[in-house]
Amino acid sequence: MKLSQLPLSTFRDAPADAEVISHQLMLRAGIVRRLASGLYSWLPLGVRVLHRIERIVREEMNRAGALEVSMPGVQPAELWRESGRWEDFGPELLRLQDRHRRDFCLGPTHEEVITDIARTELKSYRQLPVNYYQVQTKFRDEIRPRFGVMRAREFVMKDAYSFDLDEEGLEEAYQAMRRAYSRIFDRLQLTYRIVQADSGAIGGSQSEEFHVLADSGEDAIAYSEADGFAANVETVPVLPNTESHRPAPRQDLQRVATPGVRTIADLCEFLDVTPRQCLKTLLVAGTETPAVALLLRGDHELNVHKAQALDAVAAPLRMLSAAQVEAAAGVSPGSLGPLGLELPVFVDQSASRVGDFSCGANRAEHHYTGVNWERDVPLPPVADLRNVTSGDPSPNGGGPLTVARGIEVGHIFQLGTKYSDAMGATVLDSGGRPRNMHMGCYGIGVTRVAAAAIEQSNDARGIIWPDAIAPFDVIVIPIALDKSYRVRETTDNVAGQLEAAGLEVLVDDRNQRPGSKFADADLIGIPHRLVIGERGLDRSEIEYKSRRNDSIEMVALDSLVEFLDSKRA
Amino acid sequence: MKLSQLPLSTFRDAPADAEVISHQLMLRAGIVRRLASGLYSWLPLGVRVLHRIERIVREEMNRAGALEVSMPGVQPAELWRESGRWEDFGPELLRLQDRHRRDFCLGPTHEEVITDIARTELKSYRQLPVNYYQVQTKFRDEIRPRFGVMRAREFVMKDAYSFDLDEEGLEEAYQAMRRAYSRIFDRLQLTYRIVQADSGAIGGSQSEEFHVLADSGEDAIAYSEADGFAANVETVPVLPNTESHRPAPRQDLQRVATPGVRTIADLCEFLDVTPRQCLKTLLVAGTETPAVALLLRGDHELNVHKAQALDAVAAPLRMLSAAQVEAAAGVSPGSLGPLGLELPVFVDQSASRVGDFSCGANRAEHHYTGVNWERDVPLPPVADLRNVTSGDPSPNGGGPLTVARGIEVGHIFQLGTKYSDAMGATVLDSGGRPRNMHMGCYGIGVTRVAAAAIEQSNDARGIIWPDAIAPFDVIVIPIALDKSYRVRETTDNVAGQLEAAGLEVLVDDRNQRPGSKFADADLIGIPHRLVIGERGLDRSEIEYKSRRNDSIEMVALDSLVEFLDSKRA
Repeated sequence: MKLSQLPLSTFRDAPADAEVISHQLMLRAGIVRRLASGLYSWLPLGVRVLHRIERIVREEMNRAGALEVSMPGVQPAELWRESGRWEDFGPELLRLQDRHRRDFCLGPTHEEVITDIARTELKSYRQLPVNYYQVQTKFRDEIRPRFGVMRAREFVMKDAYSFDLDEEGLEEAYQAMRRAYSRIFDRLQLTYRIVQADSGAIGGSQSEEFHVLADSGEDAIAYSEADGFAANVETVPVLPNTESHRPAPRQDLQRVATPGVRTIADLCEFLDVTPRQCLKTLLVAGTETPAVALLLRGDHELNVHKAQALDAVAAPLRMLSAAQVEAAAGVSPGSLGPLGLELPVFVDQSASRVGDFSCGANRAEHHYTGVNWERDVPLPPVADLRNVTSGDPSPNGGGPLTVARGIEVGHIFQLGTKYSDAMGATVLDSGGRPRNMHMGCYGIGVTRVAAAAIEQSNDARGIIWPDAIAPFDVIVIPIALDKSYRVRETTDNVAGQLEAAGLEVLVDDRNQRPGSKFADADLIGIPHRLVIGERGLDRSEIEYKSRRNDSIEMVALDSLVEFLDSKRA
Repeated sequence: MKLSQLPLSTFRDAPADAEVISHQLMLRAGIVRRLASGLYSWLPLGVRVLHRIERIVREEMNRAGALEVSMPGVQPAELWRESGRWEDFGPELLRLQDRHRRDFCLGPTHEEVITDIARTELKSYRQLPVNYYQVQTKFRDEIRPRFGVMRAREFVMKDAYSFDLDEEGLEEAYQAMRRAYSRIFDRLQLTYRIVQADSGAIGGSQSEEFHVLADSGEDAIAYSEADGFAANVETVPVLPNTESHRPAPRQDLQRVATPGVRTIADLCEFLDVTPRQCLKTLLVAGTETPAVALLLRGDHELNVHKAQALDAVAAPLRMLSAAQVEAAAGVSPGSLGPLGLELPVFVDQSASRVGDFSCGANRAEHHYTGVNWERDVPLPPVADLRNVTSGDPSPNGGGPLTVARGIEVGHIFQLGTKYSDAMGATVLDSGGRPRNMHMGCYGIGVTRVAAAAIEQSNDARGIIWPDAIAPFDVIVIPIALDKSYRVRETTDNVAGQLEAAGLEVLVDDRNQRPGSKFADADLIGIPHRLVIGERGLDRSEIEYKSRRNDSIEMVALDSLVEFLDSKRA
């Protein structure tokens, strides 16, 4: 394709309202345009990327024996009432009425519709296993859509739903999808981790997420290269023996005035200690008491799921406001500490192993130093209350964890019989008895994959697409096209030759200076660049540069296809 | 693919609520399933058909230089307010509110969104011409959805929008799309006609429709093979010289009692005459008078557009009820006639050329016979008021018209500057002056094409897919698969060989008797059938049958690919 026929409009500067790099670059490179909050149009370059992603997804789903279907986006309320989700689903479910005042919703997911299809189409165990999938537009009315297409309201998903006679069948279907997803993300040339996950609103038991690693990821994940463990940080237990035994006390207990100290950072600066020598005291709502105190090391983060799993703590977890803390403990949050605190108290296991620590004194603008458990204050009940951090041991025992940010691009669930129970989706087993089918569901965020690929791979000049999903494989930039017959002829020949070899070629035939063409080529992230100019042609060569590095190579015209083959991943 | 892995559920009988043959067969063959009124899920066979249609559409749109984009289905009200259609569009536009109570609609079409994109992306005449297209799900809240996916509420369309600097550019873009559409429908192997059309709610001027010919079509179209004329019957003028001059009177005027005669059919039976010897009198609302009488030959149909174009006739046309006819003419509708009728009267030009005709006598249960214009009653003003019929001359002068039923599957419009005026979509021309872009829009009903193909091509046994869009090219039916190693081995070899030749192959490996497999193969309409059995294999042959006829041929195993090539269209 000729760039003169593609009305590309690129911007030098990032739009002010684009928070993450993928959103900035997608706007600057003309991949998407915003229509309204959380609604994006995909321009020609973007559609080419989506088509490449969808093609890989379809090929691998088909290879795994899944059957493509296509379900409506508008769904009748009756089905959602049957499953119980019409009431349970939050305002992300966009409800609407048709002209006859009948209730519908815009589908954020399709468990109800596919279960309705399955209970009609599937009658006998002989028809199983079945795995239906679709590549379809979903709608989720996010309260605050952000990060461009990463958390948009309308987005494209590949969703799949498996139906099996029993748990063993489901487990097989689940593992087949896990392998298919691994092949998909391998072929998409993304660096990713498969992490254990909570299953959230969809329901069910076993569940894993596929995360593309990127610094801007919304989720923190912990993984161990040594034993293959990976999980969302929220779900990872800290092993009881992570810290050695508590050291013997060396300091005396002291109360010091700490004017203006509000936070752990303030305290560390004031006392010249590190956060791991401090304890912080957090008050949350209790089940039996207005407040429960949770003690953590100053450098650790509270894990909400672990905390609300305690009987004494109200779920969902609710942190007390400053006023509520004053009412419950008679002191402001910045001066809380375990000594003399007349509330139920739990201490994180890591915090229980610190000696000579500093903490609030339950008196305005005062802290204790040299505090030691048992000597100065009884040890409260100990629990695992914190998120794991890099260096903590893997729960599987295989070496230290790394904590990194991830972008969830895929999710596989074992739903079990949640929907088939609610909606009566049965088949007859070999004995002629009706059995509720065991379901799995499996999603890939197609539009999100495009954004995640950019988050993972970009530089100051723009996007660096993986070969697998670049809108074009090669960009050909002729120099002084209008002045040289030889350049023009070679450009046509090169483009024809590469297209015949199956490559998608973009020729920048615009009447612009080379510098601005190079900048656009870098911004839109085409993996391979060829520059055709008089000088090289004197030696029957053209210039090659990979988007991934800055070194320029000269390539003989007659070995171009083989050369590019060797460069492509 | 193996049929045992496709949970095909076919039905012998048509569902009671399916009115048209395509709807019946799509349900019986497991192509679609109804989710709710006007909402359909596409099952695996159906998705395969849609993909083949979409692929041809995309290839030809790309070949014509159009650029694929993808716009949201949910559209903000603001844009529709800018164009004026938020108020103008009827209740087919499904309006909804998001969680923040902002107004949106489900897009039935995308003129507003694409014009918004164009006014941002396109700045200079140098970027033109541009033609953006998408293959996308639309929603139209039909008051009474019917005919299955033919008039569904949610459906897939390919819609394209061209942007040009001036009328000449638009005309070129329009003709390019006309050629692309012709190639598309040729490649889809459908019999179709390009007909002139009214442009309806989208607005604009020049407009043509692509109609697939099928007896069940909703639209009547008139075409002449001789001169290439084709138009919706509604728009075709009847040439003034279609009938020769009025013959001289031969009968006397007589009033006869016609007890029980209400309709032209009743009258013909009673008098033993043909409908073309009778005149019917229709009363419609007038602009100045409560009623206007329109006279047509008994065998002709009133053309609503022509009638309401008369100054004296109220537009939109409104037929009077029986009670209103009584009030205006003192007689019931079945006994109306021109003699002594004290109302404004217009006579269709064909009706003005009839002699010795019969008509109502404006007296209950009485009619006149032997009526002649001028002799018995003055000739009222003459106008073209009727639909053309088969045999009428083509308006272009090239021989007789054929009237047939058609299903509209494509539509091309010249919108002009309607949307660019309303929404300020300008580019700078070569003199640096802002100019409103000239737009065209071009639609193909992708899901409707699948239904239209069935309407055009089916028989008592089921669907007969054209080769181009069949879900599979070939079905291979092994006989006694479980008993014969040779049959099993040959089946695998044949399937592998055909797939290697690029054919989509379905192997019916189900444990069923041959008759039921043949019935399913015919119902789902696979164009080519191969039967592999012991008897044929003794001579290294297998059996071939085309879905289009009943003759069976034996084919040598080693020439199978060439043989099928020769059979495929």
